[in-house]
Amino acid sequence: MSYVMNDKFKLFTIQSNPLLTQEVADQLGCTIGECTVNRFSDGEVQIHIQESVRGAKVFILQSTSQPGNEHVIELLIMIDALKRASAGEINVVIPYFGYARQDRKARSREPIAAKLIANLLETAGADRVVTVDLHAPQIQGFFNIPVDPLQGIPLLAQHYIKKNLVNPVVVAPNTSGLGRARKLAEYIDAPIAFVDKRQPEPGFAQAIDIVGEVKGMDAIIIDDLIDTAATVTLAAHSLVENGAKDVYTCCTHPVLTGPAIERLAIAPIKEIVVTNTIELPIEKQLDNMTILSMAGLLADAIYRIYKEQSVSTLFQ
Amino acid sequence: MSYVMNDKFKLFTIQSNPLLTQEVADQLGCTIGECTVNRFSDGEVQIHIQESVRGAKVFILQSTSQPGNEHVIELLIMIDALKRASAGEINVVIPYFGYARQDRKARSREPIAAKLIANLLETAGADRVVTVDLHAPQIQGFFNIPVDPLQGIPLLAQHYIKKNLVNPVVVAPNTSGLGRARKLAEYIDAPIAFVDKRQPEPGFAQAIDIVGEVKGMDAIIIDDLIDTAATVTLAAHSLVENGAKDVYTCCTHPVLTGPAIERLAIAPIKEIVVTNTIELPIEKQLDNMTILSMAGLLADAIYRIYKEQSVSTLFQ
Amino acid sequence: MSYVMNDKFKLFTIQSNPLLTQEVADQLGCTIGECTVNRFSDGEVQIHIQESVRGAKVFILQSTSQPGNEHVIELLIMIDALKRASAGEINVVIPYFGYARQDRKARSREPIAAKLIANLLETAGADRVVTVDLHAPQIQGFFNIPVDPLQGIPLLAQHYIKKNLVNPVVVAPNTSGLGRARKLAEYIDAPIAFVDKRQPEPGFAQAIDIVGEVKGMDAIIIDDLIDTAATVTLAAHSLVENGAKDVYTCCTHPVLTGPAIERLAIAPIKEIVVTNTIELPIEKQLDNMTILSMAGLLADAIYRIYKEQSVSTLFQ
Amino acid sequence: MSYVMNDKFKLFTIQSNPLLTQEVADQLGCTIGECTVNRFSDGEVQIHIQESVRGAKVFILQSTSQPGNEHVIELLIMIDALKRASAGEINVVIPYFGYARQDRKARSREPIAAKLIANLLETAGADRVVTVDLHAPQIQGFFNIPVDPLQGIPLLAQHYIKKNLVNPVVVAPNTSGLGRARKLAEYIDAPIAFVDKRQPEPGFAQAIDIVGEVKGMDAIIIDDLIDTAATVTLAAHSLVENGAKDVYTCCTHPVLTGPAIERLAIAPIKEIVVTNTIELPIEKQLDNMTILSMAGLLADAIYRIYKEQSVSTLFQ
Amino acid sequence: MSYVMNDKFKLFTIQSNPLLTQEVADQLGCTIGECTVNRFSDGEVQIHIQESVRGAKVFILQSTSQPGNEHVIELLIMIDALKRASAGEINVVIPYFGYARQDRKARSREPIAAKLIANLLETAGADRVVTVDLHAPQIQGFFNIPVDPLQGIPLLAQHYIKKNLVNPVVVAPNTSGLGRARKLAEYIDAPIAFVDKRQPEPGFAQAIDIVGEVKGMDAIIIDDLIDTAATVTLAAHSLVENGAKDVYTCCTHPVLTGPAIERLAIAPIKEIVVTNTIELPIEKQLDNMTILSMAGLLADAIYRIYKEQSVSTLFQ
Amino acid sequence: MSYVMNDKFKLFTIQSNPLLTQEVADQLGCTIGECTVNRFSDGEVQIHIQESVRGAKVFILQSTSQPGNEHVIELLIMIDALKRASAGEINVVIPYFGYARQDRKARSREPIAAKLIANLLETAGADRVVTVDLHAPQIQGFFNIPVDPLQGIPLLAQHYIKKNLVNPVVVAPNTSGLGRARKLAEYIDAPIAFVDKRQPEPGFAQAIDIVGEVKGMDAIIIDDLIDTAATVTLAAHSLVENGAKDVYTCCTHPVLTGPAIERLAIAPIKEIVVTNTIELPIEKQLDNMTILSMAGLLADAIYRIYKEQSVSTLFQ
Repeated sequence: MSYVMNDKFKLFTIQSNPLLTQEVADQLGCTIGECTVNRFSDGEVQIHIQESVRGAKVFILQSTSQPGNEHVIELLIMIDALKRASAGEINVVIPYFGYARQDRKARSREPIAAKLIANLLETAGADRVVTVDLHAPQIQGFFNIPVDPLQGIPLLAQHYIKKNLVNPVVVAPNTSGLGRARKLAEYIDAPIAFVDKRQPEPGFAQAIDIVGEVKGMDAIIIDDLIDTAATVTLAAHSLVENGAKDVYTCCTHPVLTGPAIERLAIAPIKEIVVTNTIELPIEKQLDNMTILSMAGLLADAIYRIYKEQSVSTLFQ
Repeated sequence: MSYVMNDKFKLFTIQSNPLLTQEVADQLGCTIGECTVNRFSDGEVQIHIQESVRGAKVFILQSTSQPGNEHVIELLIMIDALKRASAGEINVVIPYFGYARQDRKARSREPIAAKLIANLLETAGADRVVTVDLHAPQIQGFFNIPVDPLQGIPLLAQHYIKKNLVNPVVVAPNTSGLGRARKLAEYIDAPIAFVDKRQPEPGFAQAIDIVGEVKGMDAIIIDDLIDTAATVTLAAHSLVENGAKDVYTCCTHPVLTGPAIERLAIAPIKEIVVTNTIELPIEKQLDNMTILSMAGLLADAIYRIYKEQSVSTLFQ
Repeated sequence: MSYVMNDKFKLFTIQSNPLLTQEVADQLGCTIGECTVNRFSDGEVQIHIQESVRGAKVFILQSTSQPGNEHVIELLIMIDALKRASAGEINVVIPYFGYARQDRKARSREPIAAKLIANLLETAGADRVVTVDLHAPQIQGFFNIPVDPLQGIPLLAQHYIKKNLVNPVVVAPNTSGLGRARKLAEYIDAPIAFVDKRQPEPGFAQAIDIVGEVKGMDAIIIDDLIDTAATVTLAAHSLVENGAKDVYTCCTHPVLTGPAIERLAIAPIKEIVVTNTIELPIEKQLDNMTILSMAGLLADAIYRIYKEQSVSTLFQ
Repeated sequence: MSYVMNDKFKLFTIQSNPLLTQEVADQLGCTIGECTVNRFSDGEVQIHIQESVRGAKVFILQSTSQPGNEHVIELLIMIDALKRASAGEINVVIPYFGYARQDRKARSREPIAAKLIANLLETAGADRVVTVDLHAPQIQGFFNIPVDPLQGIPLLAQHYIKKNLVNPVVVAPNTSGLGRARKLAEYIDAPIAFVDKRQPEPGFAQAIDIVGEVKGMDAIIIDDLIDTAATVTLAAHSLVENGAKDVYTCCTHPVLTGPAIERLAIAPIKEIVVTNTIELPIEKQLDNMTILSMAGLLADAIYRIYKEQSVSTLFQ
Repeated sequence: MSYVMNDKFKLFTIQSNPLLTQEVADQLGCTIGECTVNRFSDGEVQIHIQESVRGAKVFILQSTSQPGNEHVIELLIMIDALKRASAGEINVVIPYFGYARQDRKARSREPIAAKLIANLLETAGADRVVTVDLHAPQIQGFFNIPVDPLQGIPLLAQHYIKKNLVNPVVVAPNTSGLGRARKLAEYIDAPIAFVDKRQPEPGFAQAIDIVGEVKGMDAIIIDDLIDTAATVTLAAHSLVENGAKDVYTCCTHPVLTGPAIERLAIAPIKEIVVTNTIELPIEKQLDNMTILSMAGLLADAIYRIYKEQSVSTLFQ
Repeated sequence: MSYVMNDKFKLFTIQSNPLLTQEVADQLGCTIGECTVNRFSDGEVQIHIQESVRGAKVFILQSTSQPGNEHVIELLIMIDALKRASAGEINVVIPYFGYARQDRKARSREPIAAKLIANLLETAGADRVVTVDLHAPQIQGFFNIPVDPLQGIPLLAQHYIKKNLVNPVVVAPNTSGLGRARKLAEYIDAPIAFVDKRQPEPGFAQAIDIVGEVKGMDAIIIDDLIDTAATVTLAAHSLVENGAKDVYTCCTHPVLTGPAIERLAIAPIKEIVVTNTIELPIEKQLDNMTILSMAGLLADAIYRIYKEQSVSTLFQ
């Protein structure tokens, strides 16, 4: 695909994903817009856009990854600055949409933070959201503006198709991830299984079952994100105990906080595949980690939106 | 629980659930508000509320069950009438929230009808929504007004606890219902399994697998709703083929359209448990069907909301 | 007028007026956009737009005629789908705007359904409404978005001008339709009269008076719509009793529900003129009925809106 | 009816109707709230509310009569001040709702000023509108907040019932006022007629016809308002020419601008009945003018709204 | 700068600044759009736009100067008419933004009228505001739409730079105008001073101090507006008493109401410099008054906005 | 003042000011509501309110002080949780309102972050804001909900009145703070002065002037906040150089970031008076620092708002 754009196209990065944005810009053959994003002495965000955006179709690339609250506020303030500077269209590209796990009241008197964030983005002035692998697809419906939900699973699937595993099984690490497992399984033509956790009675230890056949098979654990890695490493250990041959794990969003790296380092996992929706510092990049780039997918989506062409091929 | 209310409490029914509303009114010891809901000759909804609602806390009970579009428009027009009649607070009790399966764009250029309905309810003037077992809990977040999401699973669980099955297994009829199965399984202390459908290659028949152990066990298939009954009867047949002892099935919302009754009549299902969130005509009530009433739960919720007491015990 | 449009023009039909939409498309020399509009088994609307609308000026043609609630919900869901698919501009062409008679609280605690429908259309995402002969012109003001109110009376007038009646009088069938009668009378240079209904005292029969001169004249009864035909056939009988020569009747919107066809069939009416804002099934097309097409007017309006040309000549 | 209110009731007047507000206050046995409404040197409105309104149910009485723009801005600023002062509920009592004749686009590229005013009132913070005899009842639907549309016709009817005219006919002075005429005619059991104006051909004089029987009868011309009095005095002259015995005229809102008083002074009208929705300066009070007071109706409505009692008996 | 525009550019004037608008049009080489703005007999604003604005970028130039309420309502109604006529973009150019001094609650239970006006403009349908020298720059933030805040001080500064005063001092006439004084002082490289008013004790006369050095210097009093001229003439007298050589005064907005002209006529002021953001009738143009034209600045801003070019050079 | 409240009153603290909230609670004789505010492993805010707030008047006390972005997001999420838990009224008490210095576009293409924050609070669901000494009073107008702007200057003034300084002068440390200086000066009957900074020509050092008389006087520098302390310490040094006797400084909000403490420690300042709108860690509490408590003022305001009593005495 060759990209042609004029001066009414603007791509900005804030602070979460400068490298990914640069990759996207390189693919599009454009430069990143001039904009300073600093902190005042008291930590308040200071943004100054240094080129005219009047009437332009603007794309801001920012994941609301850790530090999430900083990144959310930066993004909102950037949108406000663009709106007041008469940007023609404000497209917010959020490769990793944080707070997505707070998508319902799990208990009474809890917030639905993901919906709140959606409302804040609209209030600030966003016109469209582009995102990858939302924790729950229903989050699209938290918005009244168009959402283009890009899919990361095809990228992960290609990786495993190339690997050509002999007898693979796709494993959901908990009961809510089976849909995702089913989708990957379809790409690589494999059966599925899942990890079930039961709390028999108060005072007794939690029981872990593998539901489905895994013995002698190469297990690929898939999740949308890996945060503390408790879930995935528990699954990996359990799979090994239940006779799985090799254990692979993949996710779109490598959140990787707290003890995640330590746990992953000692877990019986042959390869960890993630993408760059979240930029990983060098100390979080393990030897058995493969990082796939979303730049191609995002560049395509941005270009098609800019050119008002169909994006549908990118999210199915 | 004994209920005490004054003349600023009003309960209305429209056309979907007159019997359930009457049960609720009986439990609360109140009468249903006077209101005519007719059709003009051309089918347009005609509503006239016949008693003052000025300043009252009004509760309207209406499922958006079949005919869903009629019931949605009735509900919206009723809300408009109440708003313009200066109702103090408009609480919309929707035991079955239709259009809930359109909760995300499954393909490009599809609507998110569940979100649209949420927006329409807010636009019309609803102040609060009370509902039971939403298809996806994230639909709560489609609203900016408070949603009180009541849970039907405890009611279903009590039924099975009384039954005291020897060796039960709770089965999700597809990959997306495992969370629900896990919850019921917790109440009755049982393992879980699910039905997996694979499309090996174009032209080949769909393959059905039971993932998890069911042999010689009493299988309880649980879903939030049964619509055409294709999913649940396929699961039932498959469970029997895989050696399950007896097959039970339950759901909160008996949508039961098209060939549902025929399919259920011939399926190897010992008992079908549903609730009255949708009112079933006599011809849809099979001999092996047990209908549990939501009246107690709804009456409690309505009363607590009216009295500004905590509802949390009802949705956990 | 010759029409030239590019690929950023899209015309869709839903389910109320496929023939009229086809006529409009033929006049414009364009094709109707690909879109499936079905029902799920439980009657819920299923819409899938099958071509990209990104950035396009979209026109949806849909009357909210019987079954009105179905047509309203279809239209709202279609708008939602277009909005989420990033349509550039959503123009809703509603030849017959239903619920228009509920345009005020006639009694206390009634809805203003026409306003509600207007709000719902805006909430769903409509950018502009094009409509013909609103029941009350004030309904334009129910919208905060532009409304282009096309006029059907010139079309009806041309018909009578060609007829060249010798001694015509235009008759309003009730007190609220005099403005419309005055307008038609101006086109064909005729006097006006109206039908007055009085309820002398409870228990006595309703008295019908013709106010104005009709003896020996050709009476043309005009209304915006004919629904059950009670009003217009009562007027026709009364005009004959009061010595009118021939009785003609015309309206823009042939709603024709309930006993309408039977009443019209036996009423002393020489010719019934209607338009195709509502598509009439063959069994509702009487021998003395003339159906005028709105296609030319609508095609012109749509083209001018698309080209950002003045539409004013079409609604005066 | 005896009125009992506490300190959470507040009644304010601005500048259009101090006398009417005082009458209302007297009937309710309350005092008018302390508030200064001045002009700065450059004509900008200066409002200072001098007593706490925190949490109170506030009623502001203000017609948007001449000078209408001043009265509209005063009202909006007053609402803003109340909102920011934490008033509990802001009820706007507008006996005469100006700009009501701009209720639709009569020509292309005209505003719908009545809708604009409705939106401005909601934007400023109004919670409810109480008004009398709107020019078109559809204007209720311009609001999304409750509107209580009080009816002045019963008051006018009582006046004529007491008069006991022998052979009355109610006359609409133009084609759009027939509904109003029909309503008054019902109260006093009389037939109706109307004044028809035709423009035969350009260059020829306008022709005036009385449609309906008036010879030897006492004609009561009714309109919602009399502005320049052109319409009503033309009708009066024409009625006399057509043999009417005596001519009476009545309206709710005596706008009376420009040459109105001169025209009325020389017209063949026996009595002019108006109400005090607009306060008339002494020089506009003709000898044959009877001014009926709306104070009783408004006091009742305000009290019932305050007490959350049904207002419906007042607008039917 | 040479200006090139097409037929999608429209410039309208209402009633506050016809001369300035003509100057702007002359500079742009365009004509002013056809539009009648009249009053009905009762003073209600009547607007009819006489050329198509469909899809056009429209600029309306109107100061909300005296009579402010009339000008505000005119502007709102004009915006409504444009919105309903499908204008593509409604840019509101308000050289003098009235009500700006009511920008906060100075006492409790006061309105914030400037914010109200901002909300009203957005509600009516404004897409962008262009204004000159807001009383407080924070008023930009009263809007959610883009505001382009043009600066008049450079124009005033150029005047004084040309004058080449030997020993100037810039004087703020009160404590809140020091920022403005500092800005002008920077342009002409001068020190600043201000006039301080103290109320020592109740019953004693107000004390006036000049804080800062003015003896033997040419004092330039600067304010954003001169209304009754009390402040500025008091300052002028006080400066003379404190030994200032000559006193000059300048402001952007010559509101000049009440006793302003009399006060200025007798004050010891050598030259009064104002701009034409407010059109001055001949009787308010004093001999020592210099009126600078904003036409160049506004024409540039309008053109750049129309062409989607950076406006930033104009407001810094 | 003695406080009486019932169970519909709730006071919550989040994380910025637990001590101040406790002081307020102590004064009111109430307890702080149960609520856990934690962080998930990835830093996302986790809030769970542990007691029913249904129908309650809730007050949340939270300054948006450093870390400001964290505190803003916490506050928004807390509001969301309260709204969804059916709180009756959500009052947000923000003793220090951060981001207030970004209250206008100082350069083009900058945000107006203070307005954004205001919009975010309203979007989340705040019903009222209570705050102390806003950086600019116009920020009140950024809100459409009521703002109760409490005044800290009387508290500071009392401190100096007790001190009884012989010959005081109140000094604004820059041109924009003169209004504040004037207000304090009124309380303690003193003259005012200010610090003027000039940039003579590029390359030359900034010149600092004291405008006004300070020689031999006790100078009290007043500002709304002290952030890096550059402004205030520069002023202190300059005052000493210009012959001031003792230098005092005071502010409402001790932001105190970066080098503030170091600068203050070595500046010639006798006493630094601040309040506890921002909680100071022990290492920021200098020996010559006096911390006045806002608890009394806030407790009074909260109680009056809860009881719907006039708050006006507290902000004048």
